[in-house]
Amino acid sequence: MALIVQKYGGTSVGTTERIRNVAAKVKKERDRGNDVIVVVSAMSGETNRLISLAAEIDENPAPREMDVLVSTGEQVTIALLSMALQKLDCDARSYTGGQIRILTDNAHSKARILDISGKAVREDLNAGRVVVVAGFQGVDEHGNITTLGRGGSDTTAVAMAAALKADECQIFTDVDGVYTTDPRVEPRARRLNKITFEEMLEMASLGSKVLQIRAVEFAGKYSVPLRVLSSFEEGEGTLITFEDEVMEEAKISGIAFNRDESQLTVRGVPDQPGIAYKILGPIADANVEIDMIVQNTSQDGTTDFTFTVHRNDYQKALGVLNQVSNDLGGREVKGNDGIVKLSLVGVGMRSHAGIASKMFKALSDEGINICMISTSEIKISVVVDEKYLELGVRSLHETFDLQQA
Amino acid sequence: MALIVQKYGGTSVGTTERIRNVAAKVKKERDRGNDVIVVVSAMSGETNRLISLAAEIDENPAPREMDVLVSTGEQVTIALLSMALQKLDCDARSYTGGQIRILTDNAHSKARILDISGKAVREDLNAGRVVVVAGFQGVDEHGNITTLGRGGSDTTAVAMAAALKADECQIFTDVDGVYTTDPRVEPRARRLNKITFEEMLEMASLGSKVLQIRAVEFAGKYSVPLRVLSSFEEGEGTLITFEDEVMEEAKISGIAFNRDESQLTVRGVPDQPGIAYKILGPIADANVEIDMIVQNTSQDGTTDFTFTVHRNDYQKALGVLNQVSNDLGGREVKGNDGIVKLSLVGVGMRSHAGIASKMFKALSDEGINICMISTSEIKISVVVDEKYLELGVRSLHETFDLQQA
Repeated sequence: MALIVQKYGGTSVGTTERIRNVAAKVKKERDRGNDVIVVVSAMSGETNRLISLAAEIDENPAPREMDVLVSTGEQVTIALLSMALQKLDCDARSYTGGQIRILTDNAHSKARILDISGKAVREDLNAGRVVVVAGFQGVDEHGNITTLGRGGSDTTAVAMAAALKADECQIFTDVDGVYTTDPRVEPRARRLNKITFEEMLEMASLGSKVLQIRAVEFAGKYSVPLRVLSSFEEGEGTLITFEDEVMEEAKISGIAFNRDESQLTVRGVPDQPGIAYKILGPIADANVEIDMIVQNTSQDGTTDFTFTVHRNDYQKALGVLNQVSNDLGGREVKGNDGIVKLSLVGVGMRSHAGIASKMFKALSDEGINICMISTSEIKISVVVDEKYLELGVRSLHETFDLQQA
Repeated sequence: MALIVQKYGGTSVGTTERIRNVAAKVKKERDRGNDVIVVVSAMSGETNRLISLAAEIDENPAPREMDVLVSTGEQVTIALLSMALQKLDCDARSYTGGQIRILTDNAHSKARILDISGKAVREDLNAGRVVVVAGFQGVDEHGNITTLGRGGSDTTAVAMAAALKADECQIFTDVDGVYTTDPRVEPRARRLNKITFEEMLEMASLGSKVLQIRAVEFAGKYSVPLRVLSSFEEGEGTLITFEDEVMEEAKISGIAFNRDESQLTVRGVPDQPGIAYKILGPIADANVEIDMIVQNTSQDGTTDFTFTVHRNDYQKALGVLNQVSNDLGGREVKGNDGIVKLSLVGVGMRSHAGIASKMFKALSDEGINICMISTSEIKISVVVDEKYLELGVRSLHETFDLQQA
């Protein structure tokens, strides 16, 4: 008999009918003989409704009271889901974050989980009950209600799984797993049966927004096997697991891309210690987040510096960079907000040479010019003109045989 | 510096604008130099919305989960009111029933308060904060959320006042106090400045639905001075207090009436021990609540028995009574669902003779026939034909000079 933690997001519990569907899925897992803990979000729309009420009173309400307010959203769901389970003769009991004692720090609206007391939950499981837990919320040491920040229900699920040493943490979403790339761009994209935590982190941060990055990090840290699967369809989903469990042959897991990037370059700045800070410090001070950074080797005592920022921040960053370049005596500032980033992700590339050159050749064969390259242990990212996004993704998908299992 | 507990019901906090108005009233009390604890209900409509959601899942949901569900209603209000107070630079902190630790038994949906821990509240008050408490809810000894039953926020307010030895518990409603009678029937009806707890209980149970009876009983038991006043208008309201504080001259406090009564009589049943039970037992078994009961002195070994029930139960009671009369060999069953009950209420009548005869003479002078009389220590009730309701109320109001302060 296994212990399974299941997490259902706001869309999956968005109506009482959907809550009844979730209850049926949970009961099916129980009927397989497994113990089940269910973590749920607020019904979709509810959190926004509550935030609007607060905004009618104060544009900038006290974080402590915001947490008291929005945490009611999940509390409604746990009660309704428990009722729906009992209606199916599946004994169940609901718990708020405070009741289960999900202890967090006191950083209201973005609290971090410190500890979970599994005592009451274990008693319920032993008594044959499904335990229904409010996601996204906890209490600090003084009993003040805290929230983990929006979407934090994934984190609650992983933390519950870690605290109770669950065999698997299943995240139910509106997609049926993690794909080799976005099926809307490459129809031959294939659902992965398995992916490593590190790959998942790279895929997630690059735009495959299936899971909260924080939850994935948390799951990796506590070695909780995660599975992403669909609330609305049957299927095995994608298991996010540890490297040694993944077959060696799978060199590349997938191709991620990001349309929200823009590129800035400053040329001919003096190549001196601290130059990176002098250029990027003012950008960061303007609250612009920097993604890729590339510095070319020095020529004639000067260097070129290229980085990417979110497209929404492009004009602001360009303004700051022009000022910085003037101050430093740079030769030229250039920018391009018509670019995209393509990334090849896979733990296999660690031990396999030639992946990068195969990637560059594939793009070159299609006449795609590479504007910028950045690599990590399990990822190679290139910046290309945005018009090449679909062509680039499909050609890489083909080159690395991703349509084949 | 006094400690005041204020309670605002669902209508008073029904919109964010009204919540802002309540915040202004609370701040005004603070500015007088008093410490304030505020107890609030769910925004009007919210509890019904939650109950409807549950009904979509299960017609008969588990009481434990219903309490988890509906208790979110007050939690929303405490957060919003605390925000509104802070917006007025009035420091405030919200507490759910569980956070303050309003300990109750585990009778879900109709729990009774066992104990209140005032520690956190006292610390907040000492730090100059307004404490905002969710009404209607508590926790049992295992931390399960309980509710006190609908309208139980009045009880929460009184219990908080008792636990913290507040100087006054103010119940804000949509009326500005307790009147000598219903102003819609007698325009000269006068707001009472003071009324005793016992009188208030009689007035409340007779149809002047200003306060929950249970809250009044509770306040009397713990000697908490209660004041009823309007959320929407300025004014002193009515103080509900102890007998010795009420001036001796005020013999009669008011005239209550009840239009929902109907009267049943069985004549000529054998006057034997247990006859009352034989007649009323089957009525109670049919789930019909009996209000007034009168048994006349025996004649010729038989007796007449008259009682009143809610008009909705009239036909059912009549059916049962006919059966009972047949079984007992009664002579006749008569009924009348066209009657009303008028009651004169006042602690003064205890020590003043002649009140009853003055009342009966006043009615007789108007040609009003009395069908039934029942008396208690502080109340005289008569049943009359419903067409005499207005005339009876006005004539008694005049006779006992109630329009005069």
